[in-house]
Amino acid sequence: MMNDIVENAMLDKLASLFPRSPLQLNRMQESDAEVVLPGTGTGSAIAVTIDSIAEEIATGLYKDPWLIGWMTVMVSMSDLAATGARPIGILISELLPKNCEKAFLERLQEGIGDACHACGTSVLGGDTNFSDELILTGCAVGTVEANRRLSRIGCRPGDLLFASGPLGKGNAYAASRLLQQRPASLTYQPRARLAEGEALAGIATACMDTSDGVLATLDQLMRLNRVGFTLDENWEQAIDAEAGNQARRLAIPPWLLLAGEHGEFELLFTAAAECESRLMARAGQIGWQPLRIGHVESNPVIRMRLYGTVQPLDTARIRNLPHATHGDVRLYMSSLLTMDAELRRKRDNIVTNA
Amino acid sequence: MMNDIVENAMLDKLASLFPRSPLQLNRMQESDAEVVLPGTGTGSAIAVTIDSIAEEIATGLYKDPWLIGWMTVMVSMSDLAATGARPIGILISELLPKNCEKAFLERLQEGIGDACHACGTSVLGGDTNFSDELILTGCAVGTVEANRRLSRIGCRPGDLLFASGPLGKGNAYAASRLLQQRPASLTYQPRARLAEGEALAGIATACMDTSDGVLATLDQLMRLNRVGFTLDENWEQAIDAEAGNQARRLAIPPWLLLAGEHGEFELLFTAAAECESRLMARAGQIGWQPLRIGHVESNPVIRMRLYGTVQPLDTARIRNLPHATHGDVRLYMSSLLTMDAELRRKRDNIVTNA
Repeated sequence: MMNDIVENAMLDKLASLFPRSPLQLNRMQESDAEVVLPGTGTGSAIAVTIDSIAEEIATGLYKDPWLIGWMTVMVSMSDLAATGARPIGILISELLPKNCEKAFLERLQEGIGDACHACGTSVLGGDTNFSDELILTGCAVGTVEANRRLSRIGCRPGDLLFASGPLGKGNAYAASRLLQQRPASLTYQPRARLAEGEALAGIATACMDTSDGVLATLDQLMRLNRVGFTLDENWEQAIDAEAGNQARRLAIPPWLLLAGEHGEFELLFTAAAECESRLMARAGQIGWQPLRIGHVESNPVIRMRLYGTVQPLDTARIRNLPHATHGDVRLYMSSLLTMDAELRRKRDNIVTNA
Repeated sequence: MMNDIVENAMLDKLASLFPRSPLQLNRMQESDAEVVLPGTGTGSAIAVTIDSIAEEIATGLYKDPWLIGWMTVMVSMSDLAATGARPIGILISELLPKNCEKAFLERLQEGIGDACHACGTSVLGGDTNFSDELILTGCAVGTVEANRRLSRIGCRPGDLLFASGPLGKGNAYAASRLLQQRPASLTYQPRARLAEGEALAGIATACMDTSDGVLATLDQLMRLNRVGFTLDENWEQAIDAEAGNQARRLAIPPWLLLAGEHGEFELLFTAAAECESRLMARAGQIGWQPLRIGHVESNPVIRMRLYGTVQPLDTARIRNLPHATHGDVRLYMSSLLTMDAELRRKRDNIVTNA
């Protein structure tokens, strides 16, 4: 009887791929809002975040429906991870083109379901409408004990800087998809660092995910904390191997894998130097190997070794480039290469002057 | 320093119109996810809901940016109301056309802010991106004691049926905006019935908001509860006066104000007959006058007095009409008028046969 109504039938079908959350009090269709018992103690706060996947689809960065579904979940879950929160679930609003094919839609839902499974969480509910463009919005909900939450603010000069994993995959993938006629078969499947975020309670002095790329993340942390960051001389060791190979094939200087706006959804975080062994011990317990990539300085500048010398970077210019180039991918890329040429020249000048 | 980054400057400006929630632990930009202390006791569940405003903008139903902002908040808050939840706040994802004018954007934010103020709640955070179309998605978060939550399921034959307020405004407004060359100056500004929803704890046996129109709501309640509804003979008294006038001007039969797909965002709820005086007493305490509009029957049919006789309605056909008419507003309207003509004819047949 329910499925006599086209909308009910559609919702049922979309939802049938997802297991229900054991914390959810209402059944499918039973409630105007989804109701969940967080199941944690008092003093526990709610963490919520919303993210739309629109430009990534419009520009062709994400084409595979499975990846679109996967990313819809992971982008929001990564925000929970950077807050140290444990997910309760996700709500998803899907705006679907009227001509959306059944097979495409099924792969999309599979991507959503697989990502939820990987995060140990569930789709709580959602909303489906038609639109000219395919647009997905995820709203992740989680809980975090107030005294265990991570924030972007709190790092101090002398703190060490870490990444939760290898860097540069987001930009390597984007360069391949957006600049190559025949994109390389690069695996791009970020996983929200939820267990890692929870493990950082009481250790990380600041934490943020790299959804907009590594240098943009450091620039934002710099502005919020009024401190600077210097990357370790061996920063190239933190570059993801596959991403590095891809950059070589495209003749892209490796530091641009950190400069581009496409994130790898790792966590960047800081910790006091005396906490390093405690961090590594706790990480070891969950089979995780954080990468030490630099340290915090009082002077609000981001510096890294490039072309033989430690150079300050104009990260404001880098972050404003997508805006300044109006979404023109090739202009964006050539502007980054112009910056690279300037940095090489600067080095040459230093060498000449010496 | 923060505002050297175009994106930070934009977010700051968008957020500056909204007061922060006193429950929010993080300040602006401080956290990847927003963190809120619900501030209620244990046993309290989280209510969450997501809704996108896309078709309403694309079809021209909502043109005024203030109304678009207002509705983005109210649509989700109304879902919380129907669950008996108290709002903690809302997250909003805004997809803005690149050529969106400053004055338009400011009015949009004002609508969001005014609606939050009217609901006694706050914008917790959000996400802003560019897109070809203007699309807003709201995700409301609230809390409800598990034993006080309202659900769509639980009504029984003999229960009375109530509306939280006058009906038909959504369809009167839609008819005016979508069918008239010069739309009438009809006020359409639904308010989520939050206090009313909270007052229904322990009284309402089922509750649902009329976001898709009154008959669609009754049809859904009928399917979920496997019961029917008969409207009181004087159902026209529950029609909003301004909506009734508008229907007369457009020569639309008044029952179509209940049949159309555009909601007034009132609550429809049921209560046992012996609870009516308790309901009215509790409603009086918050200055609220629920309207009794019908009762629940065991036979799963929706019936109302039309053209001198109580007739069963094909509500599945009514609900599937938007789908069957592929978004063609005039075809949708003429299909509804065809159904009206059939009901008149049926009456005539009955009279003739008698």
